[in-house]
Amino acid sequence: VSEHRGSASPGPDFSPIAWRDGGLALLDQTRLPAEEVWLDCRRPEDVAAAIQRLSVRGAPAIGVAAAYGLALALGSGGDREAAGVAAEADSSESVRRRFEAAADLLAATRPTAVNLRWAIEQGRRVFADHAAGGREAARRALLEWADRLHREDVAANRRLGAYGAELFADGDRVLTHCNAGALATAGYGTALGVIQASWGVGKVAMVWVDETRPLLQGARLTAWELSRLGIPHKLVTDSSAGALLSRGLVDRVVVGADRVAANGDTANKIGTYPLAVLARRHGVPFYVAAPLSTFDAATPSGAEIPIEERDALEVTDVAGSRLTPAETEALNLAFDVTPAELVTAFITDAGVLEPPYGESIARALGAAEPG
Amino acid sequence: VSEHRGSASPGPDFSPIAWRDGGLALLDQTRLPAEEVWLDCRRPEDVAAAIQRLSVRGAPAIGVAAAYGLALALGSGGDREAAGVAAEADSSESVRRRFEAAADLLAATRPTAVNLRWAIEQGRRVFADHAAGGREAARRALLEWADRLHREDVAANRRLGAYGAELFADGDRVLTHCNAGALATAGYGTALGVIQASWGVGKVAMVWVDETRPLLQGARLTAWELSRLGIPHKLVTDSSAGALLSRGLVDRVVVGADRVAANGDTANKIGTYPLAVLARRHGVPFYVAAPLSTFDAATPSGAEIPIEERDALEVTDVAGSRLTPAETEALNLAFDVTPAELVTAFITDAGVLEPPYGESIARALGAAEPG
Repeated sequence: VSEHRGSASPGPDFSPIAWRDGGLALLDQTRLPAEEVWLDCRRPEDVAAAIQRLSVRGAPAIGVAAAYGLALALGSGGDREAAGVAAEADSSESVRRRFEAAADLLAATRPTAVNLRWAIEQGRRVFADHAAGGREAARRALLEWADRLHREDVAANRRLGAYGAELFADGDRVLTHCNAGALATAGYGTALGVIQASWGVGKVAMVWVDETRPLLQGARLTAWELSRLGIPHKLVTDSSAGALLSRGLVDRVVVGADRVAANGDTANKIGTYPLAVLARRHGVPFYVAAPLSTFDAATPSGAEIPIEERDALEVTDVAGSRLTPAETEALNLAFDVTPAELVTAFITDAGVLEPPYGESIARALGAAEPG
Repeated sequence: VSEHRGSASPGPDFSPIAWRDGGLALLDQTRLPAEEVWLDCRRPEDVAAAIQRLSVRGAPAIGVAAAYGLALALGSGGDREAAGVAAEADSSESVRRRFEAAADLLAATRPTAVNLRWAIEQGRRVFADHAAGGREAARRALLEWADRLHREDVAANRRLGAYGAELFADGDRVLTHCNAGALATAGYGTALGVIQASWGVGKVAMVWVDETRPLLQGARLTAWELSRLGIPHKLVTDSSAGALLSRGLVDRVVVGADRVAANGDTANKIGTYPLAVLARRHGVPFYVAAPLSTFDAATPSGAEIPIEERDALEVTDVAGSRLTPAETEALNLAFDVTPAELVTAFITDAGVLEPPYGESIARALGAAEPG
């Protein structure tokens, strides 16, 4: 994968995912905030590797990146050699095999975020509808569809942000966990979209940023976005929320989601569930901001959400240094599940959903189904 | 401060604090587990600096280290030149001034741990009782008293560990936070003393070790002690406790304390309070293991415990690397307060204290008063 340096400015129009010159450019989030490097992905394998190592992360962002990855399976537009596509590879069987291999590869990268699975299922339908027209027609259809997903995700986040801002009040001090910003989506962000929209109408005084161990998405990514947006913020360790809430320094908690089950149970970055428990204890609203694409009608409850376990090295080694004895092992669960009863409301692109969530989620998803 | 390398083996008799060759040797905990370096402290200033930078930490350990620091104020035994003590400095007024300056310096190092304040108050009484005999007599009395504190702390922790083991059951999976081991005391440890005693009678299956950001005392120090004691353990990020408890993987939580107020409210490493809230939600016992020297009858409740705020750099920089944008600020509260109602029991050297804590703590402290 080739790379190029950039100087991104996350503002209203920033996206960490861009189709450029027949390839997929991804801002490598593992290197932020020290370096702004874009990866030029030309093959589905490049995209899968970027998802797996968290160069692109966040449920909506990996859904959109995977969509472009499916289009890349069929070549990168005209330049057959660059795409490694030989002429004889254009038989319909060979094209189908290439597409399916890419779909399987991308689907296997990360198990928890439902947007990934959902994007790949949609992509399979787009391919099935256009495969008969040949490789190039299917490629163009997939690319148009990926572009549409990209635009729709940004639009969904803007709607979601506006709905969220209605819930906020002047002077709110808001706590967030991990990164659910423009970087975690095709643009604008979910939890940070709500914060950005609320800030835009003068409703946010400051943001408490959980650093979010082990990979420090809060310290590295959320702090980077808030710095560039000019929104006042303060970094804290993940274990500080209890003290902040005890001292009355938090008015609202808002987080994103990797998958919301049909009953409202929510998988999100490890550490979200403790925040929800603490917010309830202190009578502080706890919101989950997520587009409907993150809700999964096929998963009845949190018990059925697969939780990714990542490499123990992410915990034992920090910034390249081993900080713990060589013989010490670690358990690195990437997500936890917050039971629906602890969620004050879901802030979605179809409005604010309130309990009972089984009903409000089913209604929102039903209304969103294409007629 | 001169240094020498060692190869410590925390076992039943290990202490991170040792009087050697007329000076105070402190195992530099900021460099564990990578290096085992002992600091040779010859002046109260050396001890104060070691406490401030957390080369020695843990409420009981800093109480004992400060006691030796007071003795060092009066010279380091015979060798006047090494101690920088001139003959004319032996006037009773000059000795008193030197002692008082050391007491003030040591007392100001860290505000939360009550053992420090308590040790310095006791040291003042020892000095007052022996100052009339001249510098050398007072120095010897202080040194004997510091040695006694050292021995008594180890003995208290052994008693406390035995009481704690009675509460544990076969196969327990125990979660602990920060380091309340031999390293945090004069030896044997409080929370880790309980774990060690329980393990010794076959009652602990394994230990979940919270890494304990920002300074990673769990990942660095608790993991080091457990490794050397041969006790099975697994490291997790501080935000993992909710997921572990949800999955039924934790049978007990046991932590140390920096100060227990008269009503049982407990200041301990930031992140302790969220653990107590989560343990309560999941019906898992939450124990605080602390010698009576950590209980403070003069502090009515947690609201009156001063909470140290440490340098933001401890949060923004990890292992020497800046991980967050240059303009991002951090709040670094070193401790939080767990309300007494969330504590299942206090495990002390005078037995297990149960609610109502106002009464059980007063009774235990009253019985411990010297007749």
